[in-house]
Amino acid sequence: MSMKLSALAMELGLEHTGADIDITGVNTLEKAGPEDLSFLVNPKYQHLLETTKAGCVLTSGPYADKAQRALISDNVYMDLAKVMNIFARPQGCLRGISELAYVHPEAQVDESATVYPFAFIGEGASVGPKTVVFAGVYVGEHTNIGANCILYPNCVIMGGLHLGDNVILQPGAVIGGDGYGYAQTPAGHMKIPQIGTVEIENDVEIGSNTAIDRAALDTTKIKRGTKIDNLVQIGHNVEIGEHCLVIGQVGIGGSTIVGNGVVLAGQVGVADNAKIGDGAMVGAQSGVAGNVEPGSKIAGTPAMKAGTFLKAASVCMPKLPELFKRVKKLEKELAILTAEAAGGDCNE
Amino acid sequence: MSMKLSALAMELGLEHTGADIDITGVNTLEKAGPEDLSFLVNPKYQHLLETTKAGCVLTSGPYADKAQRALISDNVYMDLAKVMNIFARPQGCLRGISELAYVHPEAQVDESATVYPFAFIGEGASVGPKTVVFAGVYVGEHTNIGANCILYPNCVIMGGLHLGDNVILQPGAVIGGDGYGYAQTPAGHMKIPQIGTVEIENDVEIGSNTAIDRAALDTTKIKRGTKIDNLVQIGHNVEIGEHCLVIGQVGIGGSTIVGNGVVLAGQVGVADNAKIGDGAMVGAQSGVAGNVEPGSKIAGTPAMKAGTFLKAASVCMPKLPELFKRVKKLEKELAILTAEAAGGDCNE
Amino acid sequence: MSMKLSALAMELGLEHTGADIDITGVNTLEKAGPEDLSFLVNPKYQHLLETTKAGCVLTSGPYADKAQRALISDNVYMDLAKVMNIFARPQGCLRGISELAYVHPEAQVDESATVYPFAFIGEGASVGPKTVVFAGVYVGEHTNIGANCILYPNCVIMGGLHLGDNVILQPGAVIGGDGYGYAQTPAGHMKIPQIGTVEIENDVEIGSNTAIDRAALDTTKIKRGTKIDNLVQIGHNVEIGEHCLVIGQVGIGGSTIVGNGVVLAGQVGVADNAKIGDGAMVGAQSGVAGNVEPGSKIAGTPAMKAGTFLKAASVCMPKLPELFKRVKKLEKELAILTAEAAGGDCNE
Repeated sequence: MSMKLSALAMELGLEHTGADIDITGVNTLEKAGPEDLSFLVNPKYQHLLETTKAGCVLTSGPYADKAQRALISDNVYMDLAKVMNIFARPQGCLRGISELAYVHPEAQVDESATVYPFAFIGEGASVGPKTVVFAGVYVGEHTNIGANCILYPNCVIMGGLHLGDNVILQPGAVIGGDGYGYAQTPAGHMKIPQIGTVEIENDVEIGSNTAIDRAALDTTKIKRGTKIDNLVQIGHNVEIGEHCLVIGQVGIGGSTIVGNGVVLAGQVGVADNAKIGDGAMVGAQSGVAGNVEPGSKIAGTPAMKAGTFLKAASVCMPKLPELFKRVKKLEKELAILTAEAAGGDCNE
Repeated sequence: MSMKLSALAMELGLEHTGADIDITGVNTLEKAGPEDLSFLVNPKYQHLLETTKAGCVLTSGPYADKAQRALISDNVYMDLAKVMNIFARPQGCLRGISELAYVHPEAQVDESATVYPFAFIGEGASVGPKTVVFAGVYVGEHTNIGANCILYPNCVIMGGLHLGDNVILQPGAVIGGDGYGYAQTPAGHMKIPQIGTVEIENDVEIGSNTAIDRAALDTTKIKRGTKIDNLVQIGHNVEIGEHCLVIGQVGIGGSTIVGNGVVLAGQVGVADNAKIGDGAMVGAQSGVAGNVEPGSKIAGTPAMKAGTFLKAASVCMPKLPELFKRVKKLEKELAILTAEAAGGDCNE
Repeated sequence: MSMKLSALAMELGLEHTGADIDITGVNTLEKAGPEDLSFLVNPKYQHLLETTKAGCVLTSGPYADKAQRALISDNVYMDLAKVMNIFARPQGCLRGISELAYVHPEAQVDESATVYPFAFIGEGASVGPKTVVFAGVYVGEHTNIGANCILYPNCVIMGGLHLGDNVILQPGAVIGGDGYGYAQTPAGHMKIPQIGTVEIENDVEIGSNTAIDRAALDTTKIKRGTKIDNLVQIGHNVEIGEHCLVIGQVGIGGSTIVGNGVVLAGQVGVADNAKIGDGAMVGAQSGVAGNVEPGSKIAGTPAMKAGTFLKAASVCMPKLPELFKRVKKLEKELAILTAEAAGGDCNE
């Protein structure tokens, strides 16, 4: 892959400084060579502009002059994403439907789709155009997979589910395993069969080894544009809104409803039956129960306003042992003063 | 699937109100149609009885009159589980032992079992009657799987293990990976081979992508009726008692012993070599080390009485910054008072 | 497997007490029989020396006399690891390259390697001598796997990666899934293709269902001798030093750099772009952001000195409700005293 800088600039609708060159790849400021494009967003790293060997640097106006050659952008990350889409080589080395796959006679696989060896496509399932099903993937009966999806190796999509278009499942993701539901009986926990489904809308990405449970009844839903990281647990009947970011190892309890544009940072836990309003941001490792106001920023276990938590946990907590001493001292001193006041009372 | 309400009531040993109808499915109060059975447990949702189109509602006595037609139960969840077992269609679309599976010549697979394509059954392994082994499952050498088990796609059960009857492994669950054991040596961490086993008793269910390590020596044990959720980590030589509930993303360190009927809520961490008494309940995200009294309710990191934690974390924590101010004010005021007392002493 | 105690002692370079016997296995003090070797490290269990039926006990000098027969070691765990390596039977029941595997014509698999049925080896990939690739493993295109590696069932190693020698991947581990990187655009989160790689150095072990993301650009790196437990999440561009211990369910955000010999206890979360110095130890469930001094011991969220956290969280936290009462009492008493002082002022 090689492309003129001028052609790249035109494709992105950007201006570039310096003479035209061939661009053959993308790399970091430290690793880029004279035919690589690199990028700068964080001012903290601007000193690297002096030493980088990058042929051209994608950056915003203020830094353009400091680079030998620059591609000037108002949204560097967005244009970086576009550039990398041009230079990225997609994963995989096969095309077409492998004879080593199992495709049920009653399944519908679009002829433009790719199905790797050892993939399993169940009865009545469908796989849309240009979708890639890697090795070891299981697509259960009557599950519909849209167009342009990528199902990386060893994903499991159980039966009766619906995935939209442009959905990406990283390796080992499990969609539609049974929800965790049991009736308490004298003989122990009796399994409540989980006969609902999961719906994953367009443009959703789901991380490695993440688990999204099917609904007990009705539907577990992940709405369009939401991006879920690795090792996340999403319980039955959860609904996650559009364009959310759910970072690694978050856990969400059953029937919880998450609004649009919500950010749940790493290792957050959300109880079952909670409601998180649109645009809320929850700090890493926080524990959320009940309702969260739209647009609020919260942190801690149980979660409180993020600013309060930060003060309480990072400023106050370390001084707690000292505070107990100060209060004890106050009590002593006050007792002495009180005794003195009583003893030295003028009226006596 | 279609069944007379009267026949369903008889099968469950329950009474119903209203005229007899055909029941063809189960759904929520909001989604149910005139041939569906629905249910009500939580009084919070009783207003839905007015608008539901459900043909019949499974509920307890007090709500029966409010539904057009009711099936009256003292344990709604239990009877719901029974009803759903009647109407649930099990996952899967194949029967019998696929020619695309690998079954070692020295393995014993019961003729009533199902083995999907790309499943692997190792030397000397056995698979009991009516057990279903989905695609991509690995059953290691000399591992015994009981009757009526369901091993969902891409589960791994390493060699030399024992699973009882009616065991369910959700997709991607890993049983018998090596425990995390290393000897410290001048040359680095030396692996201690993990030559023990795992025993999973009858009626245990294990969630998607959960990992249960084999013992270093001896046995990691999950006792009968215990239900483990998704993405749980259970270390080597752990013993979990009967009828426990271990919720999503819990982690349990090596050699810890958990009693019967224990509930560990989501994201709880238990250190190694801990002991948790029968019937104890541990709140979400708590950190447990050492011993936990039977029947106790604890929470927090490190865990304390749940009531104390709730007060300390949700009431006191947010007010800590203010408390520091109050103490500072007290100190100032007391200093002034002390100075005044000294200065204004009558004896002077 | 059977071996004379005297021969075993010679192989380990240790002395033994008592008459020579045949050793046929290793087990715990409670389970060992007269032909088993057992071991004692923790003095807490020394009473078991009186009742054990073990033929010989591997232990340190002070306890040797208390056992009927002892193998005396200065590093019991290390010698135990060596003994168990002698008696351990490796997992697996096949040898050679199965005809049921998919090996791309352009892949290089050493003839001494083992490849199980349903394993996938992509174009241009290489598998080194004596490496074992279990069933359901995916090795992506142009990925190099060194010698003596064990890739347990259903592991995924995406394309373009490098694994050194003696690397062990427990079942379901995912190496080289896409990092979590999106550009914010008016139309939603735009995926930034992750075109970097992952390098796993020699002697690294990675736990069941752990996920290690490929770099956005450049390399995610796990250095030699580091041992990573189950269900750990490691973000893109992370570097983990040599001989670290990363315990179960730890999560590490993107671009974080972890030094050598670091210990991250269970469920620790580390933010992105953090730096953890050599030899630091982070307590279980802690939350780390920013920089951590080499050799420091920290705990809590956000993390502070471990000693401070322990005092604050386990001693002070439970007494917080009481502290608030004490401060309130002080305020009342001080108010009374102040009023009295004003009222009873001698000068009045």
